[in-house]
Amino acid sequence: MKRLLSGLRPTGKIHIGNLYGALSNWVKLQEEYRCFYEVADWHALTTAYQDTSNLRSLIKETVIDWISVGIDPEKSVLFVQSEVKEHAELHLLFSMLVTVSRLERNPTLKEMVRDMELQEQVSYGLLGYPVLQAADILIYRPDVVPIGEDQRAHLELTREIARRFNHLYGKVFPEPEPIFSSFPKVPGIDRRKMSKSYGNAIFVADEPDEIKKKVMQAFTDPEKIKKNDPGHPEGCVVFAYHQIFNPGVSELEKECKRGNIGCVACKKRCAELMAKALEPYREKRRELEREDIEGILREGARRARVVAGETMEMVREAMRLW
Amino acid sequence: MKRLLSGLRPTGKIHIGNLYGALSNWVKLQEEYRCFYEVADWHALTTAYQDTSNLRSLIKETVIDWISVGIDPEKSVLFVQSEVKEHAELHLLFSMLVTVSRLERNPTLKEMVRDMELQEQVSYGLLGYPVLQAADILIYRPDVVPIGEDQRAHLELTREIARRFNHLYGKVFPEPEPIFSSFPKVPGIDRRKMSKSYGNAIFVADEPDEIKKKVMQAFTDPEKIKKNDPGHPEGCVVFAYHQIFNPGVSELEKECKRGNIGCVACKKRCAELMAKALEPYREKRRELEREDIEGILREGARRARVVAGETMEMVREAMRLW
Repeated sequence: MKRLLSGLRPTGKIHIGNLYGALSNWVKLQEEYRCFYEVADWHALTTAYQDTSNLRSLIKETVIDWISVGIDPEKSVLFVQSEVKEHAELHLLFSMLVTVSRLERNPTLKEMVRDMELQEQVSYGLLGYPVLQAADILIYRPDVVPIGEDQRAHLELTREIARRFNHLYGKVFPEPEPIFSSFPKVPGIDRRKMSKSYGNAIFVADEPDEIKKKVMQAFTDPEKIKKNDPGHPEGCVVFAYHQIFNPGVSELEKECKRGNIGCVACKKRCAELMAKALEPYREKRRELEREDIEGILREGARRARVVAGETMEMVREAMRLW
Repeated sequence: MKRLLSGLRPTGKIHIGNLYGALSNWVKLQEEYRCFYEVADWHALTTAYQDTSNLRSLIKETVIDWISVGIDPEKSVLFVQSEVKEHAELHLLFSMLVTVSRLERNPTLKEMVRDMELQEQVSYGLLGYPVLQAADILIYRPDVVPIGEDQRAHLELTREIARRFNHLYGKVFPEPEPIFSSFPKVPGIDRRKMSKSYGNAIFVADEPDEIKKKVMQAFTDPEKIKKNDPGHPEGCVVFAYHQIFNPGVSELEKECKRGNIGCVACKKRCAELMAKALEPYREKRRELEREDIEGILREGARRARVVAGETMEMVREAMRLW
């Protein structure tokens, strides 16, 4: 089986944007690849080093959600980055192979500097997070990496580092290929990108009451005021949710356009379907809360270290290190 | 006993500048402190990553010389940096606590960029070597660090990182104090700074023939041409060597100034004294070449890891990491 690596920062409970974005894809990929799924806790420190008080609970919540939606820790290697110290070692070695000016051209960093007004405050670790990412990926010598369009530049740097290493010391690393998947766009209830930090997210673990409350507040077609006004589903958040959760969405689309259904009824139906679709995850979550998540992750880290350790031996031998 | 950390890059055989600079001081410090002496092989990569083919033999030569001049691997913890992976982990965590602009102000880096014409070619690892150095030091929570004047800025950054960490997460690290020692200046035979790369060095392991050959070529007072010309010892390389190796140096100084001794005779006497002083080291070296240096270093790394591991537990607990 070909190998695959992916990872996300531990942001805690996942929302339906995460689920129908990366995670449902991860679940499917388990059938086809030997998957390594990383909870990237060191990466979380690149921007949130100042308050780490809730990091442990965020990691646990993240993992519970990943497993509840179908990441199978028997099938995949599910682990916390900081439990596999080899990543730090490879990161240090890779840091010799990338120039500062190359890292300063990272478009995502430029955006962060602008949005977070960092300027002179960029930490050494933040500048170098793509080097850590390259180590995270290459240490498992994966064939493929599932990414979104916005991560194309990062994977390119990873491939550059692999080439540079292989050129200097002999071939150790593959140049992993990207897998692009098309995901449904899942807007937040205020129609911006769904994000925990925007407060516009519906979480996979939300109870039906909570889901209903959120969907009832969701942004809909502002021109549809009365029930019988014809609606414009294309810009409507609730319609975007129906597209995911409602098998009869094309029928609903017609009803809305004809003015045969009002937004309140449409939202209620949406909330019910969503609550029902997420019910198995909530149930699984309740089971998992009683399980030994630390133990599952310890076992995942152990399995990750087998491969990471092999790679580091190859690396040290190729570089002729002590 | 208070703890002390120091280290040097593995440059291979040490010269008498290293010996009467750092190393003879290290030997003395063993009586007063619990010493951790590091062969900084990862640091060597910051400038020499492109050719690592002889790194292993350089490390071995370095260690043989250190032991031959009196570093006692029973008394001190003598280890190779890359065998203690905890340094890489702490380096990664510290990288969040230092800004890029702080590192760009490092005067030594500025000099290197100028002298080696690096400009756009500064690697991420080279920019960050003072962060690695801070990790190397602080992971042993030492009370003191013996340094030369030129390393004052580095130790200041280490102390800053310790303060910053303690402020954010609670006290884990001491702010190690510098120990400044005054060393005799040991010039190279061409009167520049003695350096392997300048080809002007006399090595501790040099055989008497080799020593004689080098001393005979050494720079002396250019105004003393004939034997009976009065000499000016202050700028003379050979006189600088006499100051280290000749107990009767003040008598010699007078002879030279009076024109009672010629440079050839003075050099011969110097070479003899030097060869004799270095003889015990050469002998010890011959013994060591038959010993299991790898085993000595493995044991050193094991002992280093005990302390480094303790520190990392304290660090992870303070930061509330997974």
